[in-house]
Amino acid sequence: MSQRFILDPAVENDFPNFVTHLECSYTGEILPANQLHGLSPAGKPILVRYDLKALSNAVTKEELAKRPGGFWRYREFLPVRETKNIVSLGEVMTPLIPLRKLAGKGGELIVKDEGRLPTGSFKARGLALAVAMAKELGITRLAMPTNGNAGAAMAAYATHAGIETTIFCPDDTPEVNVSEIEYQGGKVYRVNGLINDCGKIVGEGKEPTGWFDCSTLKEPYRIEGKKTMGLELAEQLGWEVPDVIFYPTGGGTGLIGMWKAFEELEAIGWIGSKRPKMIAVQSTGCAPIVKAYEEGAEHAPLWENAFTHASGIRVPIAVGDFLILRAVRESGGFAIAVTDEAIDNAQAEAARVEGVLLCPEGAATYAAYKQSLVDGRIKSTDRAVLYNCATGLKYPMPPIARMLDKNQPIDYSKI
Amino acid sequence: MSQRFILDPAVENDFPNFVTHLECSYTGEILPANQLHGLSPAGKPILVRYDLKALSNAVTKEELAKRPGGFWRYREFLPVRETKNIVSLGEVMTPLIPLRKLAGKGGELIVKDEGRLPTGSFKARGLALAVAMAKELGITRLAMPTNGNAGAAMAAYATHAGIETTIFCPDDTPEVNVSEIEYQGGKVYRVNGLINDCGKIVGEGKEPTGWFDCSTLKEPYRIEGKKTMGLELAEQLGWEVPDVIFYPTGGGTGLIGMWKAFEELEAIGWIGSKRPKMIAVQSTGCAPIVKAYEEGAEHAPLWENAFTHASGIRVPIAVGDFLILRAVRESGGFAIAVTDEAIDNAQAEAARVEGVLLCPEGAATYAAYKQSLVDGRIKSTDRAVLYNCATGLKYPMPPIARMLDKNQPIDYSKI
Repeated sequence: MSQRFILDPAVENDFPNFVTHLECSYTGEILPANQLHGLSPAGKPILVRYDLKALSNAVTKEELAKRPGGFWRYREFLPVRETKNIVSLGEVMTPLIPLRKLAGKGGELIVKDEGRLPTGSFKARGLALAVAMAKELGITRLAMPTNGNAGAAMAAYATHAGIETTIFCPDDTPEVNVSEIEYQGGKVYRVNGLINDCGKIVGEGKEPTGWFDCSTLKEPYRIEGKKTMGLELAEQLGWEVPDVIFYPTGGGTGLIGMWKAFEELEAIGWIGSKRPKMIAVQSTGCAPIVKAYEEGAEHAPLWENAFTHASGIRVPIAVGDFLILRAVRESGGFAIAVTDEAIDNAQAEAARVEGVLLCPEGAATYAAYKQSLVDGRIKSTDRAVLYNCATGLKYPMPPIARMLDKNQPIDYSKI
Repeated sequence: MSQRFILDPAVENDFPNFVTHLECSYTGEILPANQLHGLSPAGKPILVRYDLKALSNAVTKEELAKRPGGFWRYREFLPVRETKNIVSLGEVMTPLIPLRKLAGKGGELIVKDEGRLPTGSFKARGLALAVAMAKELGITRLAMPTNGNAGAAMAAYATHAGIETTIFCPDDTPEVNVSEIEYQGGKVYRVNGLINDCGKIVGEGKEPTGWFDCSTLKEPYRIEGKKTMGLELAEQLGWEVPDVIFYPTGGGTGLIGMWKAFEELEAIGWIGSKRPKMIAVQSTGCAPIVKAYEEGAEHAPLWENAFTHASGIRVPIAVGDFLILRAVRESGGFAIAVTDEAIDNAQAEAARVEGVLLCPEGAATYAAYKQSLVDGRIKSTDRAVLYNCATGLKYPMPPIARMLDKNQPIDYSKI
């Protein structure tokens, strides 16, 4: 069979690589590839650029279709040069699940369930790439702040690759995330603060410890991993984009990455100029991007006293704020905030009506979909995609107390 | 593109169906298809039989290779007649993850990670089929005993299909399982007993309530769903079987199902006569199959005072005992018991060394692999497959207490 289902770096052929250079996302300054980079000299995220013409001659949609699922199938679109540096924990093409009972009249509502990736979240995409590139560039110690899922993904991939990790998370991070980081070989600290406080500890520790800082958008490659969300979605929809994408927005890497994916796909002629409306979803308790969007601002300052139990989107300040806002505006989309109550209700409704368990951040996108239909900002006939960024199983659900005594006669009329 | 990634029963063409009849697995008595069946008149599990010659003329390996991942790709091998009865929650082809650091010298150790299926366990396979067939046969109320994951899968698929479910589980079933059943639209009761006590409640309630009993092997279709584990594994390995399969054995449906898959694949000429050694893995606290295997018995009586924290294999008596034992013996395999301590150690080792989080039952298979290498019952050069039957995220991990105070100076030399 031509399909290989075990990704074996030891026997895999090297793929051609099309990276030409890196580039500051703010100033456009050109930076050399094959070197360590954090933020650009201007203190902004760095983007990877490819020779897209050569890339388009090297791979076809038909060839891609024959490859096993999982984001490593997009090798030509990714920066890893040597196949031996690929790190794989069994990636899958995350499924599209239509919610037919909950869709707007005449439209389509589709969940892209990122919870099926290794470690149960979309963070696997970015961190697999960051870890593979760390391996390629000879890095042996990584550090990162996390709200939970990113830390788990980094620990698992780094452990698999033989790289050491140190991770800092807010003290109220869900227990399962803290435990899985450590259990999977990372070293984890709880901090009495939010993710930006944790980020500060990583930043200040870089020099004394020799850590490489893997924070969101502070190295160039997590965004390339998240880009595969856009490549994969377009492929799954037959190289078309949907009308709207609802994306739970913390650091925003995925939204920025998908936007980059669509740009690259259009450049090689695989999709047309149509773009989905990119909708950044936040919580009313932490909505810096929504505020900046509504004020017409380019940047989103620190949101004071951030709170929401959807911890993945509790990100008071994002280094890629201008990139998120740019993609949202260029796409004709918008930024929208939903309450924690709306998140809870949306989560319960999707589970009880469709049997689909969303994580709180994924539920936020469904809440935003409903709100946007009411607002009239999207049409009921739209084909809308919701990103469920993690498995709902990591989060507490309402406990059940109903008991039966096997030693007593059972009144079945009451069951 | 020819690949469709959204399984849409409404627009999908019907596939040809090759079911000829059903058959008692013990007496061989022939039973009609397209009717409701529980156990056979002899009180034994019922198997579905196909016109394999016609089937082999209707589909090729090459055609299969073009279909989207997920077990519905094996439609010709499955009993559902009308496509509109298919129930899908986004099935994926579960990945094979090589554990290169833990494999025996010169051999291969591969985890098949069933935790990526809807509701996070391999139970999705059997229950998707049971629910689809219930829909096809006009059943509106299902009931089942569960140790957790089967109940979650049944609730999710039945809710998606608009079917009512009532589920009974031991009172110490993990909280996440109990909650997710109810959250996903099932009605769940805790019972002060084990899964066989719960099964009794279902059995006695059938008449007064009108429930259809979906217990393991007490209806004919869950085994057809589990059969896809064998079809999928063979396809992933290029239509070859591995040398050994370690399978965590409670009710044993998957082991029986895979054995049936290999038989059907050989009958249509897709694989040869080679079979993997089928190894039934149990816990030393609940090992009825191991005891019967060692005693040369055909059946495995109730195991008294069963205990193990790997609750999925805490099954004191299995209605398919003789089918499990038959497959194990015919394959040249064996049944093996591991201690809870060995399970814990195996789980921690896989996580810390490979970054792969196994569930306790999956960890039992890795413990059994190690024990079998020491015993000499398998060879270090074997290609061995471990079934990780559920996501490890559903189970508690050791908690972490390490704290940092953001308001104090940090001594990075101690981090």
